[in-house]
Amino acid sequence: SQFYHMPQHRPQQDENAQGWRRRLHEVIFEADTKTGRRFDVILLWAIILSVFAVMLESVPAIAEEYTLILHIFEWGFTILFTIEYIARIISVKRPLRYMFSFFGLVDLLSILPAYLGLFITGTSSLTVIRILRFIRIFRVLKLMAFMREAIVLRNAVKASRKKVTVFLVGIAMTVVILGTIMYIIADAESGFTSIPRSIYWAIVTITTVGYGDIAPQTALGQTLASIIMIMGYAIIAVPTGIVTAELVGGKPPITNTQSCPSCSKENHDDDAKHCKNCGHEL
Amino acid sequence: SQFYHMPQHRPQQDENAQGWRRRLHEVIFEADTKTGRRFDVILLWAIILSVFAVMLESVPAIAEEYTLILHIFEWGFTILFTIEYIARIISVKRPLRYMFSFFGLVDLLSILPAYLGLFITGTSSLTVIRILRFIRIFRVLKLMAFMREAIVLRNAVKASRKKVTVFLVGIAMTVVILGTIMYIIADAESGFTSIPRSIYWAIVTITTVGYGDIAPQTALGQTLASIIMIMGYAIIAVPTGIVTAELVGGKPPITNTQSCPSCSKENHDDDAKHCKNCGHEL
Amino acid sequence: SQFYHMPQHRPQQDENAQGWRRRLHEVIFEADTKTGRRFDVILLWAIILSVFAVMLESVPAIAEEYTLILHIFEWGFTILFTIEYIARIISVKRPLRYMFSFFGLVDLLSILPAYLGLFITGTSSLTVIRILRFIRIFRVLKLMAFMREAIVLRNAVKASRKKVTVFLVGIAMTVVILGTIMYIIADAESGFTSIPRSIYWAIVTITTVGYGDIAPQTALGQTLASIIMIMGYAIIAVPTGIVTAELVGGKPPITNTQSCPSCSKENHDDDAKHCKNCGHEL
Amino acid sequence: SQFYHMPQHRPQQDENAQGWRRRLHEVIFEADTKTGRRFDVILLWAIILSVFAVMLESVPAIAEEYTLILHIFEWGFTILFTIEYIARIISVKRPLRYMFSFFGLVDLLSILPAYLGLFITGTSSLTVIRILRFIRIFRVLKLMAFMREAIVLRNAVKASRKKVTVFLVGIAMTVVILGTIMYIIADAESGFTSIPRSIYWAIVTITTVGYGDIAPQTALGQTLASIIMIMGYAIIAVPTGIVTAELVGGKPPITNTQSCPSCSKENHDDDAKHCKNCGHEL
Repeated sequence: SQFYHMPQHRPQQDENAQGWRRRLHEVIFEADTKTGRRFDVILLWAIILSVFAVMLESVPAIAEEYTLILHIFEWGFTILFTIEYIARIISVKRPLRYMFSFFGLVDLLSILPAYLGLFITGTSSLTVIRILRFIRIFRVLKLMAFMREAIVLRNAVKASRKKVTVFLVGIAMTVVILGTIMYIIADAESGFTSIPRSIYWAIVTITTVGYGDIAPQTALGQTLASIIMIMGYAIIAVPTGIVTAELVGGKPPITNTQSCPSCSKENHDDDAKHCKNCGHEL
Repeated sequence: SQFYHMPQHRPQQDENAQGWRRRLHEVIFEADTKTGRRFDVILLWAIILSVFAVMLESVPAIAEEYTLILHIFEWGFTILFTIEYIARIISVKRPLRYMFSFFGLVDLLSILPAYLGLFITGTSSLTVIRILRFIRIFRVLKLMAFMREAIVLRNAVKASRKKVTVFLVGIAMTVVILGTIMYIIADAESGFTSIPRSIYWAIVTITTVGYGDIAPQTALGQTLASIIMIMGYAIIAVPTGIVTAELVGGKPPITNTQSCPSCSKENHDDDAKHCKNCGHEL
Repeated sequence: SQFYHMPQHRPQQDENAQGWRRRLHEVIFEADTKTGRRFDVILLWAIILSVFAVMLESVPAIAEEYTLILHIFEWGFTILFTIEYIARIISVKRPLRYMFSFFGLVDLLSILPAYLGLFITGTSSLTVIRILRFIRIFRVLKLMAFMREAIVLRNAVKASRKKVTVFLVGIAMTVVILGTIMYIIADAESGFTSIPRSIYWAIVTITTVGYGDIAPQTALGQTLASIIMIMGYAIIAVPTGIVTAELVGGKPPITNTQSCPSCSKENHDDDAKHCKNCGHEL
Repeated sequence: SQFYHMPQHRPQQDENAQGWRRRLHEVIFEADTKTGRRFDVILLWAIILSVFAVMLESVPAIAEEYTLILHIFEWGFTILFTIEYIARIISVKRPLRYMFSFFGLVDLLSILPAYLGLFITGTSSLTVIRILRFIRIFRVLKLMAFMREAIVLRNAVKASRKKVTVFLVGIAMTVVILGTIMYIIADAESGFTSIPRSIYWAIVTITTVGYGDIAPQTALGQTLASIIMIMGYAIIAVPTGIVTAELVGGKPPITNTQSCPSCSKENHDDDAKHCKNCGHEL
């Protein structure tokens, strides 16, 4: 892991740092050394297993039968994560900066609920606290940040963010309009009892999810529904096209029309000042 | 906003225009100035909130409990939009041209229903009038028109319009044929009571919506259904490919029309200077 | 329409042809003249309306109430198509070749059922005959064949045919294997009563149709179902990628590694024999 | 087929090999000769038919009525596959290497269940054994390996494997988080009885399958469901983009690493000879 450790590595500071503290930092925050990578893998499994334990606890049948085992598991992970949290605070140069960073808060919220559960007795608030432990899952993000592919994907998504926003606004408007029209023409018995509910149906339909809990029964309703479906089927092409175009890295559809005054070479980039073929100023 | 204001800016006209009128025009129609942009943002929120109010009014439980609040909101927005509408007419050079433009009519229809509601008492016609207020949502389009991304997307969709039409005609024919075959081979008990209904089912299936209200029960019906599903699953690729190809701006499938003057070889790259087949200069 | 008329236009034959026969041919088979295009548009509407009439006849409520009107419509279209069929046979140089071509047979099958219906009295065979009239819809293809976009799309689909076949074989194997595994682990009460039915469910799921008439109820079944769903969600990318790649006309992933021995220019097409930059032999 | 036969073709070994053994090897393992290809086609049909027989046997109605025919078919295929298996062992130079290869084990497991069935009498273990015969379907893979298209597709999928993994991890985290939130806000009556079940619902929804057996009933639940659906609708673009980008073979998002020696401008085209910013030669 390569967070928060930059100040640590300025040479003059390294000499001041105690040996064990620097080694601890290397193990916890860096993935370069063998021990560091092993630490990351163990941590990843601990996070996944603890999330699994929380999931299983929510199943009534399992919660009753395996109460003790789940309890032991839960406290085992809590203690492990607590030690890790303290180790992070100790080994980091600026503990407060880490503690109030996104991952610092996630690390804290992963262990806090278990301790809070000791003092609180109300069942409903206990349920909420138990579920808060799920925040642990965000810790996986910390370990994913090193994968090169994740970065490429994130960049492609980031680059197409504006276009996707326009697309989502368009979808939102479409479903509001279609949902309202459906509310007017469809009968309430089929489930179209209010505009929000009709919009919900329009979303279920245009995204091709199609639960079937609300479905038009009249010929007119089914005709409109058919139009929405085929629309949704064709619209899916838009976000796909956007992300693909971003990943392929193709030229934008509106290209530069400039041609070199010296060699007449065309197809220059929008920010080009000199011809890429002969070097003449554009 | 940059609509209808071009004539306003001819220098000789500017001098004649009264100061406050020109400033009003700037605020309402242009997004360049700070006040103009602030006006646009306020308007956007007013439109969204008023659409939300209409939506909530359609929910029986909410309509009964919050009658008064919704009424106040409704009239507040109506008065706001009325003032805006009048301001637009005053500040525009050619009011009639604005009033009969698409957005002019949308602006009018956004406020008219509320005033009409004062004179009409029949419940059913009142419902229709109330829903007419939904036309307000189209006003959002006016504010979206300035986003560069919306234009790129619209151009890509426009450019692929003809191909998408061919695709939709193909889909329409496919579902009509498959729906009819299904009507012949499926039993009426499963819901295939008429050809239009069977076609509706084919659309629900080929678009992968799959409500489940109509579903084949016999082995033969399920076999045909399976074919339709996999067909639909593969067909989705076509509109996606069309829009993506348009956004990527890749070479069209029928490329360069040059043919070698020496050997008549075709299919040269666009930047080729010599025939790739015989070496003759192109 | 440009079918079957090539021999007609050999100069020596034109002189022999009677004037009215040649003009009839122009109107029916060609879309170049104004009358020819008008004829095509009228025909298109007649086909669509007659298909609609057949569809409506299958709805019991409509069939009972509008029996007479539908009967008149049906005979009107039948007579119209009969006249057209005879006109085509007369105006074509080689009538037999047209009659036994795909579109000739479709034209015949569009009118035959109505005449056969006069001599046949059994209800069930009458139903089959009536539905045969649906073959008319294929006549639309004849008119679509002239759209340039249809040709581009057809070529893209044709070019990706082999890859799509491999993809479909892969899908078929996947659903057979997953359906069988599901048959073993799922209980019969949820609807997994036989392997073919489980495969049907796997198809419904992997194509994201999801009727919901068969759905796993056990934890194990739902886990496998989840894997199938996410698999199907990721697999959809494959046909899309294939068709898109074909439409974009991109280079295949394994490109030519040759470089020009004279100017070292790379990126040559696979069939290039000379460098496209300097003309030197490769 | 071109497996395991390389050592066979070393000239000095060919002379030692008996004539019939070499010819047998050619027929079974190679697809170059006419007989070899005919053998492959017959084998393909035998595999498909035997898989069909196993499928039909699982349908209670068919199993009862056609017990004898299915039995004869089954033993016919078993004997055919046994002969083929023995022939493969004989004709191959290193029989053990073949027997313990993936396809060798698949070949063995395709015939073993039938023979085991003779000695085992328990109904439930018999059912398991019968289903084991399904392993035959993997033999199709052996014959598919020769299609060029399958290789191109496999390469594209292989190349995008890492990105798809990141995508799947992202999807997994998303559904776990959304499923948990849904479990907190939705009522148990709608089917959200535990976190795993809520996650199952989130998967059904985000992949747009939408069975409808679990569906939110409250306004809050439907609002979250709407967000998940639109998310899923937009997310589908990501794997599609990945595979398409791989198939198109477009420029990777991180392009040309050249930087101008004069002005340090980056992001040049791959075929650029001069810096597009300052005109200096690259």
